[in-house]
Amino acid sequence: MAGSSFGTIFTITTWGESHGPALGVVVDGCPAGLPLSAEDIQPYLDRRRPGQSAFTTQRNEADAVRILSGIYEGVTTGAPISMMIENTDQHSSDYGELAYTYRPGHADYTFDQKFGVRDPRGGGRSSGRETVGRVAAGAIAAKLLSTMGITVSAYTASIGQVSVDPARFDLEEARKNPHYMPDALAAKKADMILEKARTELNSVGSSVGCIVTGLPAGIGNPVFDKLDAKLAQALMSIGAVKAVEVGDGIAVSSSSGSLNNDPFRLENGEIKKIANHAGGTLGGISDGSDLILHAYFKPTPSIAQPQNTVTKDGKEVSLSIKGRHDPVIGPRAVVVVEAMTAITILDLMMTGASAKLSNLQKIYS
Amino acid sequence: MAGSSFGTIFTITTWGESHGPALGVVVDGCPAGLPLSAEDIQPYLDRRRPGQSAFTTQRNEADAVRILSGIYEGVTTGAPISMMIENTDQHSSDYGELAYTYRPGHADYTFDQKFGVRDPRGGGRSSGRETVGRVAAGAIAAKLLSTMGITVSAYTASIGQVSVDPARFDLEEARKNPHYMPDALAAKKADMILEKARTELNSVGSSVGCIVTGLPAGIGNPVFDKLDAKLAQALMSIGAVKAVEVGDGIAVSSSSGSLNNDPFRLENGEIKKIANHAGGTLGGISDGSDLILHAYFKPTPSIAQPQNTVTKDGKEVSLSIKGRHDPVIGPRAVVVVEAMTAITILDLMMTGASAKLSNLQKIYS
Amino acid sequence: MAGSSFGTIFTITTWGESHGPALGVVVDGCPAGLPLSAEDIQPYLDRRRPGQSAFTTQRNEADAVRILSGIYEGVTTGAPISMMIENTDQHSSDYGELAYTYRPGHADYTFDQKFGVRDPRGGGRSSGRETVGRVAAGAIAAKLLSTMGITVSAYTASIGQVSVDPARFDLEEARKNPHYMPDALAAKKADMILEKARTELNSVGSSVGCIVTGLPAGIGNPVFDKLDAKLAQALMSIGAVKAVEVGDGIAVSSSSGSLNNDPFRLENGEIKKIANHAGGTLGGISDGSDLILHAYFKPTPSIAQPQNTVTKDGKEVSLSIKGRHDPVIGPRAVVVVEAMTAITILDLMMTGASAKLSNLQKIYS
Amino acid sequence: MAGSSFGTIFTITTWGESHGPALGVVVDGCPAGLPLSAEDIQPYLDRRRPGQSAFTTQRNEADAVRILSGIYEGVTTGAPISMMIENTDQHSSDYGELAYTYRPGHADYTFDQKFGVRDPRGGGRSSGRETVGRVAAGAIAAKLLSTMGITVSAYTASIGQVSVDPARFDLEEARKNPHYMPDALAAKKADMILEKARTELNSVGSSVGCIVTGLPAGIGNPVFDKLDAKLAQALMSIGAVKAVEVGDGIAVSSSSGSLNNDPFRLENGEIKKIANHAGGTLGGISDGSDLILHAYFKPTPSIAQPQNTVTKDGKEVSLSIKGRHDPVIGPRAVVVVEAMTAITILDLMMTGASAKLSNLQKIYS
Repeated sequence: MAGSSFGTIFTITTWGESHGPALGVVVDGCPAGLPLSAEDIQPYLDRRRPGQSAFTTQRNEADAVRILSGIYEGVTTGAPISMMIENTDQHSSDYGELAYTYRPGHADYTFDQKFGVRDPRGGGRSSGRETVGRVAAGAIAAKLLSTMGITVSAYTASIGQVSVDPARFDLEEARKNPHYMPDALAAKKADMILEKARTELNSVGSSVGCIVTGLPAGIGNPVFDKLDAKLAQALMSIGAVKAVEVGDGIAVSSSSGSLNNDPFRLENGEIKKIANHAGGTLGGISDGSDLILHAYFKPTPSIAQPQNTVTKDGKEVSLSIKGRHDPVIGPRAVVVVEAMTAITILDLMMTGASAKLSNLQKIYS
Repeated sequence: MAGSSFGTIFTITTWGESHGPALGVVVDGCPAGLPLSAEDIQPYLDRRRPGQSAFTTQRNEADAVRILSGIYEGVTTGAPISMMIENTDQHSSDYGELAYTYRPGHADYTFDQKFGVRDPRGGGRSSGRETVGRVAAGAIAAKLLSTMGITVSAYTASIGQVSVDPARFDLEEARKNPHYMPDALAAKKADMILEKARTELNSVGSSVGCIVTGLPAGIGNPVFDKLDAKLAQALMSIGAVKAVEVGDGIAVSSSSGSLNNDPFRLENGEIKKIANHAGGTLGGISDGSDLILHAYFKPTPSIAQPQNTVTKDGKEVSLSIKGRHDPVIGPRAVVVVEAMTAITILDLMMTGASAKLSNLQKIYS
Repeated sequence: MAGSSFGTIFTITTWGESHGPALGVVVDGCPAGLPLSAEDIQPYLDRRRPGQSAFTTQRNEADAVRILSGIYEGVTTGAPISMMIENTDQHSSDYGELAYTYRPGHADYTFDQKFGVRDPRGGGRSSGRETVGRVAAGAIAAKLLSTMGITVSAYTASIGQVSVDPARFDLEEARKNPHYMPDALAAKKADMILEKARTELNSVGSSVGCIVTGLPAGIGNPVFDKLDAKLAQALMSIGAVKAVEVGDGIAVSSSSGSLNNDPFRLENGEIKKIANHAGGTLGGISDGSDLILHAYFKPTPSIAQPQNTVTKDGKEVSLSIKGRHDPVIGPRAVVVVEAMTAITILDLMMTGASAKLSNLQKIYS
Repeated sequence: MAGSSFGTIFTITTWGESHGPALGVVVDGCPAGLPLSAEDIQPYLDRRRPGQSAFTTQRNEADAVRILSGIYEGVTTGAPISMMIENTDQHSSDYGELAYTYRPGHADYTFDQKFGVRDPRGGGRSSGRETVGRVAAGAIAAKLLSTMGITVSAYTASIGQVSVDPARFDLEEARKNPHYMPDALAAKKADMILEKARTELNSVGSSVGCIVTGLPAGIGNPVFDKLDAKLAQALMSIGAVKAVEVGDGIAVSSSSGSLNNDPFRLENGEIKKIANHAGGTLGGISDGSDLILHAYFKPTPSIAQPQNTVTKDGKEVSLSIKGRHDPVIGPRAVVVVEAMTAITILDLMMTGASAKLSNLQKIYS
């Protein structure tokens, strides 16, 4: 694969550049029989959309999704679902200088090295805008998972130095404030941090958490396609993510076996774990507990401060990036994390559907 | 894929269980023309092997590799390279009880949930012993990369609370002490931590770092098969890894754009970065700087302390795990991290070999 | 994969139904640096288009392609190329009855068995119209191959009982007559056959040949991804194809080794074959001779004669299929065969680009 | 993929050369819970083995399979099943001259062109002996399919000019005569043809048919992974196959729609087809009828007659191939066709297991 597809059975292929005529995704392998319409997709795209708060870019894309195939009379048919979002608010003129100047922290230089040619308008293919396709596909995966009682919920876990206080953790709250933080007080502090960053023509880092509930035990494959391994790829593939944790994550490295192991016990005759340091996976396979993930985002690389850099033809220059840029990435990436998580889980459920002979026999008899 | 294969062109498929007759790997897609013999592979397996220090399991496997195909007159032919390591020191009797009792922190329960049947001897397929195949394959990838000036070096970055001091960082040292720590003092402190863990019938967590030098800019694909995304999968697929970082990793989330961006400059006419917070990738593509990775390992789940758990048929029991178990995973996983990193990089170099039309024309004319 | 993608590095993913709003394809992995515009694609789509002769369906689609991504300033960037063809002439009302009645020779029944739900308008996903995406992608592959001196030329080899006479074989002629037959006399006889079929409310079978010139030796992988094996999949995946031949094809089964082997000789110091019974492959790898393929198409299953069949809810009925249907499939499939052949060859060139270590070193140094 | 793997979920990876120490296969993705032992595999290998009749090569390999992983207490665990067959009867000395001389009809030249290096002993990787891995894997697939009432039966359909007479077609007979022909009289005529070929130091072509019974409707995916498209790849990937037919195959090209369409009718309330020209697929998906396939094999290219050819360093020479060679390929390939067919069908059943949402819900609730 050349890298624009993800998944083995539930496969998504995204396309499009920041300032091209449109972006989109083809979702192949979606099971037939799922009621689906643009109304299921649009709310996810709206959550990703800029202009949601004072701190997100002022670029104003309607991001209206159009479903072009794969649905008949409101139900998925098993055929590929092609979705397109037209670009309606490109200001290409903002980007003239950037065709020749390598922005620090961006992929301009590496794309040129790899391909020899590059669409410089708004980051082209490496723009965060590429994620609209992921989000549209994720909305389908999330809806499908919900029919089996599985919910995927992401939220902003930290902005700069401000982290959500576990004692105040409230997923409902995450849907109410513009930073998607499940802690109203932290969200308020984040306001100040972002205001300061904006004033200083700077940006800040952030992190996003994700909880999956209702996931049955048994999802994920041994060895290379472990549930956590595929999720690590899925989340690290989101631009600006530099670290991924499952469960206690980095903290396990300074823990001990007796503290970190989650003991099993019986609960109404069912096998449950008393704790969940593992974050819901054992040996790369879901264990029936909640799945717990964290992804860490670097600060927005586009900042208005002058930065030292070089041009394509080898001149040292100072660059001040103008234009519309969020001072933080996490909040807008919340729905992208949710999307990639849902897609990954669904695909592993599908590839593992016949892991037992009895399942295969159940289907084909 | 059912999960035992990794890679698109340079593809490895591992097989084998902890206490079966043998384990191995098939490496498909290795370029023809690489001088190769068992002598290239064995040193990697020896580094992974137990019995290297007082603190690794006393199980004594020779782990002698046998190359069964793909080599003719000492050179790779492009045909799949099958390698086998026979198991010679299985004590299956140690594991009788474990056929029915779910060890906390292990994959016993999840394998049963997924497959309905399970090889309980030594963890079966979910044993750390599965990694011998990865290491054998990684030795080939590493040798091949070295012909292009690329070196992959992993080391133990922390054991329990003891971390390598950056001021004393010395990769040479990492080859000298039994913990593979690039800091002799830290290695000594680790001795004490491990001695204490052993005395307390407990285990500790750890972390492994990895540096790749000589990597040209341009490796990795946009979007889902980013260099860091595939590496995240590769490393998270190693049993017991719960977090993966690229470059500054988690720390980026509390940094700012002006600090975190790596400015470009000219160095003897070549474009270089002044800093390397990014850890060698921009937009998922190598940027010509060193690639910097960290993987975080949970404490060995097998501990001799009594633990609460349940049996397959639903009884609550107390379990004390006997047998030969390392009190820490990181040091033996150092070579596994190295192997997976080399394999991932090589495969991305191969899938990207014709990213430019001019490259394709260079080869086929 | 759920079946709508083809290729490993040069990957195409088609989407769309006969009577949906649009159809299209995403081409991922196209090498960067190829000059490309809609003008390169449209002539291929025009060749596939109905309304080219008295004998093709009277449905009149403009089939105008729109390139939505992957091109910057007239050159491919290595990003996915999304192409869309809007449907402008759907007469869904023609197809009401067919939502419930299984057309003999069509996929109505099998889609219902597989998916439980189906878009019945014009065959939905199983319509021949799905091939517009293949053809658009094939135009890119063919243009790219032509930059390396490789040409792919398909033609109608037979219509009903009328076959092209090898003595009159003229590829130039194939572009002149509406049946794409490289023999003007055969094309004239075909007119009569098709006129007769139309009068009898019937249809006839056909076959398509394909010649690839300029293909270097060494393309194709041993074992499962042989050049001929992937081509067999590619061609058999075109609706209505029931047989695929390479070189002498079926005739080899009644030949002898001494007749069928192609002797090697030297020609100006280069190794050449005296004959080409093999059709250009040895051991699944191109041998430097012309590649010769044939695909055999069943008669159009949609015929106006009454046919016995059943309805979805289990009633036996007589069905006369009205509407616009070609009495023969081959001529319109000529460009589809060309497209699939070009795509397959290019992908194998790309996956094999680093089959030799020296090639890899040539690219990354 | 570099070509040694086949399948998406039920994946086989073969390895080994004709005269290396061993050959084998890794089967990943086999559903857990299938009783399996070497006794299930060996009979398939024995059918492939030389020395079965006066007309097969006198090379005498025991071809004893050893299962190295994936089985516990006689049942598959879902882990990869590694199987190895050691080579015990290599006469490498027979092949000295062939390191430098390109045998007509063989892959010597093309391997050298592709890889620059080649194992010349007995054809190396391109030897028919590579199929032992396929056959071992196919035995597993066939056993698994049989638990769902699906049987795969291949047979020799023709040897040279002698074809099986449909009027005498008897699958039982195919297991009795050394040519695996389902017609005792044809088998006798074949004796004479082969005796003549041997006397004349020549070889003859052949064809193999395959019938699958009990296959439910709904197997195979639309578009590129059609049941017949994947089978075409599977069969064409067998060395020496030059044509593949489904159902009536080539004959459809001279048929008419009214004759070739298979009408549906009701049979005890179930939907059936009256005829089966289609050979069991409609739109690339199984239709519930028997699946009918034919593969056409070229004459054995190794013949003892002198042939004109060239050497690697560019000299024209005459070559007489000595050693042990069958004068016909089909009979020994019968079990290979059976294996590849079973593997392909099983994999498509597994990838399609969740084509309907209701199936997925059935499994995960």
